[in-house]
Amino acid sequence: MTPDAIDVIRTKRDGGQLSAEQIRWVIDAYTRGEVPDEQVSALLMAVFFRGMTPGELAVWTQAMIDSGERKDLSGLGRPTADKHSTGGVGDKTTLPLAPLVAACGVAVPQLSGRGLGHTGGTLDKLEAIPGWRADVHEEAYLAQLREVGAVICAAGADLAPADKKLYALRDVTGTVESIPLIASSIMSKKIAEGADALVLDVKTGSGAFMKDVASSVELARTMVGLGEAAGVRTVALVTAMDRPLGRAAGNAVEVAESVEVLAGGGPADLVELTLALAREMLAGAGRDDVDPAAALADGRAMDVWRRMVAAQGGDPDAPLPQPAERHVVTAPATGTLTRLDAYALGVAAWRLGAGRARKEDPVSAAAGVTWTATVGERVTEGQPLLELHTDEPARIPRALEALAGAVGVDTGDVPLPLVLDRVTAS
Amino acid sequence: MTPDAIDVIRTKRDGGQLSAEQIRWVIDAYTRGEVPDEQVSALLMAVFFRGMTPGELAVWTQAMIDSGERKDLSGLGRPTADKHSTGGVGDKTTLPLAPLVAACGVAVPQLSGRGLGHTGGTLDKLEAIPGWRADVHEEAYLAQLREVGAVICAAGADLAPADKKLYALRDVTGTVESIPLIASSIMSKKIAEGADALVLDVKTGSGAFMKDVASSVELARTMVGLGEAAGVRTVALVTAMDRPLGRAAGNAVEVAESVEVLAGGGPADLVELTLALAREMLAGAGRDDVDPAAALADGRAMDVWRRMVAAQGGDPDAPLPQPAERHVVTAPATGTLTRLDAYALGVAAWRLGAGRARKEDPVSAAAGVTWTATVGERVTEGQPLLELHTDEPARIPRALEALAGAVGVDTGDVPLPLVLDRVTAS
Repeated sequence: MTPDAIDVIRTKRDGGQLSAEQIRWVIDAYTRGEVPDEQVSALLMAVFFRGMTPGELAVWTQAMIDSGERKDLSGLGRPTADKHSTGGVGDKTTLPLAPLVAACGVAVPQLSGRGLGHTGGTLDKLEAIPGWRADVHEEAYLAQLREVGAVICAAGADLAPADKKLYALRDVTGTVESIPLIASSIMSKKIAEGADALVLDVKTGSGAFMKDVASSVELARTMVGLGEAAGVRTVALVTAMDRPLGRAAGNAVEVAESVEVLAGGGPADLVELTLALAREMLAGAGRDDVDPAAALADGRAMDVWRRMVAAQGGDPDAPLPQPAERHVVTAPATGTLTRLDAYALGVAAWRLGAGRARKEDPVSAAAGVTWTATVGERVTEGQPLLELHTDEPARIPRALEALAGAVGVDTGDVPLPLVLDRVTAS
Repeated sequence: MTPDAIDVIRTKRDGGQLSAEQIRWVIDAYTRGEVPDEQVSALLMAVFFRGMTPGELAVWTQAMIDSGERKDLSGLGRPTADKHSTGGVGDKTTLPLAPLVAACGVAVPQLSGRGLGHTGGTLDKLEAIPGWRADVHEEAYLAQLREVGAVICAAGADLAPADKKLYALRDVTGTVESIPLIASSIMSKKIAEGADALVLDVKTGSGAFMKDVASSVELARTMVGLGEAAGVRTVALVTAMDRPLGRAAGNAVEVAESVEVLAGGGPADLVELTLALAREMLAGAGRDDVDPAAALADGRAMDVWRRMVAAQGGDPDAPLPQPAERHVVTAPATGTLTRLDAYALGVAAWRLGAGRARKEDPVSAAAGVTWTATVGERVTEGQPLLELHTDEPARIPRALEALAGAVGVDTGDVPLPLVLDRVTAS
């Protein structure tokens, strides 16, 4: 008997367990347009309240993967690993990380997305590089992975198409904030990508999707479970996003900072997290004998970066876009910087033009915010602390509004460590 | 600022209280097609889990009423009262009740519906009378109320159109079984009808929508609160639907039984409930000085019935449709009839052709089930107990399947009283 959508909804609504057949049917029928949006949105809201068992969620995620194609990268002849971040402010780690891990002998197939709201998107950042293109066709993708070892590009329509449809529906029906739905959305795409190993960077704090450590750890555990159930070696780091990462949030400014890291410099927190994630990716891919710090220091990672950018039409030597206007905000007092609120800085960068409110909006490559000190560091009253970049000076007042109360200077308060937890399969 | 559908959904989802402005906006915008089904179904599922406060529910119900027109019957020059039953098997009380109350000087404006599933619909039953028409135009409706005192007809499209749309959506999204949504659906239509007083017959037991007394009482309280908030004197009786009402379930067979009651006879339980409801309607309309039993005994109620049927084209003297086939089921043992399951009998009548599975299906006037004894009465092994009526003999085996285990004969067990509770405003 064909499962019935109303039965599926009522079973979940009443706290029952969905059968594998029911889950596979509803995901498949929805993707094919045979179950309408209004039934699936009711089901998603029931999932919001009732959750899913690990068994249900594994089948749900597999059904989302099976709505498209799970890529097979075994022909590459070398191990593969990828990273996913749940999104934060100033989180440009993918940019230095992909070439770094590739330089260590592990291929990095990164299918990425664009930003929405106060967090930036990897593709938006890379598009600040003159000539760089996010769209890479299947054949060129595999060739670049083979020849360069790393590719960061837009996901094709065949990658978990069920997720595309479900995500758009969740977005308008108040069903985004559900751990099983978040986990299955992320993991269906990441598993379908075909990497052997996966490292998850689950952000926690004001600038992150998950505001508290407990729910971040729950999301991390759920995703690690799904990865392992699908045969992908998966580890998650839970990392601080109460303050932004590095010293820049925006597009061109984040590319510039990533290049600093690849040149052996860059802010300490960004270097620390990049290396921590690289070690996890290498370990997951069976290459824990390799030290990524050496590949940063000796320029190998930079070489891969330049080839990776060039392979997608970008000019690694071209000057990055500069803003029409810069506006400096000085430190309000002398002391330790105890608060630099990630969410406020993210909203400021967004309002300056770095982010978009709707999927179809363009972003400004030059817009963003940079800062000269991060939490735990000493600042002196009147020193330049923040620099706002924008193409449209009229945007500055609303960005400054977002920053009200974002900076705190005090005498005490040690900030949270950068890496708060490490979640593995058992 | 215009309220936002996603905000409304998230507020309810997270256990917050919706503002009057949000509720009025979402009901109005949905009725006008400006908020899509998938957002409202998510909201309805959130209401299923979170409920509504009495204040929210009163605004929600008023917004549904305001989606159409609340009728004004003050020009009739006499009090008005109506009754609503939540639906049961063999529940034909509306048929004798409307003319009975009209005969006692209180006008009865009953806008009614059709059956779906195992419970019958008042209009389906009356349509068994040759010539009778459910559709009555506005002017004829008021004229009939004035001249005959009672009208039972189909509701027009202007009666709470929001309910029509919301009900159709709930039906396919697993959001029917929610007390605030049930209560607002019923009460928006009943309040819009414009009667001064309203009596609710909330059925409880296997054949009812609400299977247990506690949730029936909760539904009764919720509806009484909504009626009083809208200025309609409202009382609810919670009545037994573990067994069917009277001795017949179907269409023509229920008309015949109603006519018996109007002629001063009929089964004791049906007469008892009809009189109890009539007394409540009369009291609500300020006429508790009138004794409805006398109007049954002296034929005044029958006179109104005949005029009411004739006013809508029906011939009260025409023979009722007879079934092509009758099938007798005998009593399995000698003793007290302790179980005669309402749901099983309802499903049997439905399968014999008396009910419909989809709104657009026709029903058979002659199909149904009659029984010679009800719970608490003595039966003798082998005596005829049930009679199945159908136009299509092929339907009988599946009706018999539905009846498996429906009849119990034992030595003890006093059944529940017919009227279990009476719920008033305070």
